[in-house]
Amino acid sequence: MNVYADNAATTKMSKRAIEAMLPYLDQVYGNPSSLHSVGQRAAEALASARERVAGALGCTPREIYFTSGGSESDNQAILSAAAIGARKNKKHIISTAIEHHAVLHTLDKLKKNGFEITLLDAHENGIVRTDELKSAIRPDTCLVSVMYANNEIGSIQPIAEIGGICREKGVLFHTDAVQAIGHIKVDVVKDNIDMLSLSAHKFYGPKGVGVLYARRGVSITNLIEGGAQERGKRAGTENIPAIMGLAAALEDAVSRIDESSKKLTVLRDALINGIMQIPHTILNGDSVRRLPGNVNVCFEGIEGESLLLLLDSKGICASSGSACTSGSLDPSHVLLAIGRPHDVAHGSLRLSLSEENTMEEVEYIIKSVKDTVSYLRDMSPVWRDLQEGKKKYVIQ
Amino acid sequence: MNVYADNAATTKMSKRAIEAMLPYLDQVYGNPSSLHSVGQRAAEALASARERVAGALGCTPREIYFTSGGSESDNQAILSAAAIGARKNKKHIISTAIEHHAVLHTLDKLKKNGFEITLLDAHENGIVRTDELKSAIRPDTCLVSVMYANNEIGSIQPIAEIGGICREKGVLFHTDAVQAIGHIKVDVVKDNIDMLSLSAHKFYGPKGVGVLYARRGVSITNLIEGGAQERGKRAGTENIPAIMGLAAALEDAVSRIDESSKKLTVLRDALINGIMQIPHTILNGDSVRRLPGNVNVCFEGIEGESLLLLLDSKGICASSGSACTSGSLDPSHVLLAIGRPHDVAHGSLRLSLSEENTMEEVEYIIKSVKDTVSYLRDMSPVWRDLQEGKKKYVIQ
Repeated sequence: MNVYADNAATTKMSKRAIEAMLPYLDQVYGNPSSLHSVGQRAAEALASARERVAGALGCTPREIYFTSGGSESDNQAILSAAAIGARKNKKHIISTAIEHHAVLHTLDKLKKNGFEITLLDAHENGIVRTDELKSAIRPDTCLVSVMYANNEIGSIQPIAEIGGICREKGVLFHTDAVQAIGHIKVDVVKDNIDMLSLSAHKFYGPKGVGVLYARRGVSITNLIEGGAQERGKRAGTENIPAIMGLAAALEDAVSRIDESSKKLTVLRDALINGIMQIPHTILNGDSVRRLPGNVNVCFEGIEGESLLLLLDSKGICASSGSACTSGSLDPSHVLLAIGRPHDVAHGSLRLSLSEENTMEEVEYIIKSVKDTVSYLRDMSPVWRDLQEGKKKYVIQ
Repeated sequence: MNVYADNAATTKMSKRAIEAMLPYLDQVYGNPSSLHSVGQRAAEALASARERVAGALGCTPREIYFTSGGSESDNQAILSAAAIGARKNKKHIISTAIEHHAVLHTLDKLKKNGFEITLLDAHENGIVRTDELKSAIRPDTCLVSVMYANNEIGSIQPIAEIGGICREKGVLFHTDAVQAIGHIKVDVVKDNIDMLSLSAHKFYGPKGVGVLYARRGVSITNLIEGGAQERGKRAGTENIPAIMGLAAALEDAVSRIDESSKKLTVLRDALINGIMQIPHTILNGDSVRRLPGNVNVCFEGIEGESLLLLLDSKGICASSGSACTSGSLDPSHVLLAIGRPHDVAHGSLRLSLSEENTMEEVEYIIKSVKDTVSYLRDMSPVWRDLQEGKKKYVIQ
């Protein structure tokens, strides 16, 4: 059985998104900046996509900037807020320790340029506390950037509350909603979000395309300089085929969110219940306030990488930490931030489901994970030490 | 008859490029950073694409960074060289007055950060003089950025000579080769190019994908921070479908360059000869050292925009200046830089051919342009003034 359970890393494009994309490769292939009819047909498509995306997010088309993806959107949002802050001599930014590296590394860059960064604790359940946010806001705070939902442990932040606090205090609020959009309900107006990043390939759309939402009045700084595309804020010929794919995938995902969320929650909870029967296993992230498709656990006494490779040999695609950091030997910064010790963090497994997954697949995953964890523990010296009391269990 | 003659703005994707792209939308859809087999198949595809692109450019795979397009590559190349320069307190950059805005606006940004910019004159034929470059290089020059071929007037710069001078003087050399790659022969090693930008949609590949070539040893600064993709230098999930399309289109274009160049030169020269029969018409750009598919002329006494719209009504897609600046009422900065007066620059027409164009189409364009220019001049008060001697012809 082949089971793809790594949808937080990337998704398979939906038929609808592919069909929306194809005509723009060699039929309506014009450059939207061209005056002639071939270009103007592309410009009309772009305008309609922008309207549809705005509709799905609850904002106006002028607040939508198409980018090459979530990382670019995160970079541009944070640098824009920093530029606004710097003009007022406000150089303090608040974020969290469990953000995506697109946020954290951009903040590192700003730190070198004289900004001060406060990272909120995500606590054991991976959720920041709004009272801690409140106390962290200072007169020189120019930005709060808190992700909507975590890409590894699936924890969902109290975004509406955070947005309310920021608006009240007059501080810009950005949220990396790459894992949330299309999976849980997001309303940029109700949530008082000033800037939001999303990426199409996380909701069955194409790779290489994303959106930066910036509320009217928030002054955006170019990351890419050049032509006057995207109201002068993002240069480069618009990637119309990908933008059409994004719009179709987003509309589809948002319109079916109740249905998909319900279905995924059932699969997710069955998967969590099955896996948690394995002794000395700990669930990472909040059990309730978590993404419908996200499962993340740590198994004591084993290495996540070996587990992944053995699961792969059984046809199961899963992940350990974030796909973006797989090149690194360090354990996930998210798991460390929520208090997992190094060796426990190394034994992590993330399963991220899509609507294509079935209960039969979930049962197959549970059985395979049980067998594989047991097999790996039998060979593990760490596990032997734990059993013999030479080392103490962290997970009780 | 429908004639698309705006291939410098963007091209229709080739069948080969589309076919190369499609399997990666919903079959090999993995994230190359994932350890499992679905991800590893994507990683293998990425590695093979990188090798093929390196082969086509004459460099090594480690010197190739995939980006979202030419503008991003230009921005990153220039900012990288500026960062290297700043570390040595070398803050002088040489470029030309006819660069793409992705270069010029990035230089403007650097100017605000204390860099000094020298723009070389492109002279009447749109070609810089290497003796002028030599005299412009100073001990504090950290970068020379000269485009390979101009996007509007098609003039080809003496890149090998420029590269030789820069190498000799120990100055980094970047070339925006967006209009050159796939159309004329480029060899990054022979030409002593340190950094080069290209964009797939200019040679029948997909939009939203490009390459930054950076010679081994040239330290690249991230424009987009985040995950460790592209050897840590360009964050964001790799756009595998687009990268596969780029690789196929590039190999195709480069392997057929002699044939396509020969065919296009014949069409181009027939088009130039036909159009130049119209009185008071001037050819913009060098007559010999120009891109095989590029025609750019100014007609005195008319507005380029009206000409474009009337040609469009006859089924001909053309351009006036660069597609990227069509939102602006200012005439092309390139035409002004080569000495065309404002009102003459306003009467410009760019026709950029692809191999799909035929001699029959060229004849149709000539006839349509002749008729339309004549029609517009009959209604033009400027033309009347010129005829009556109240205003002097600039073009003799």
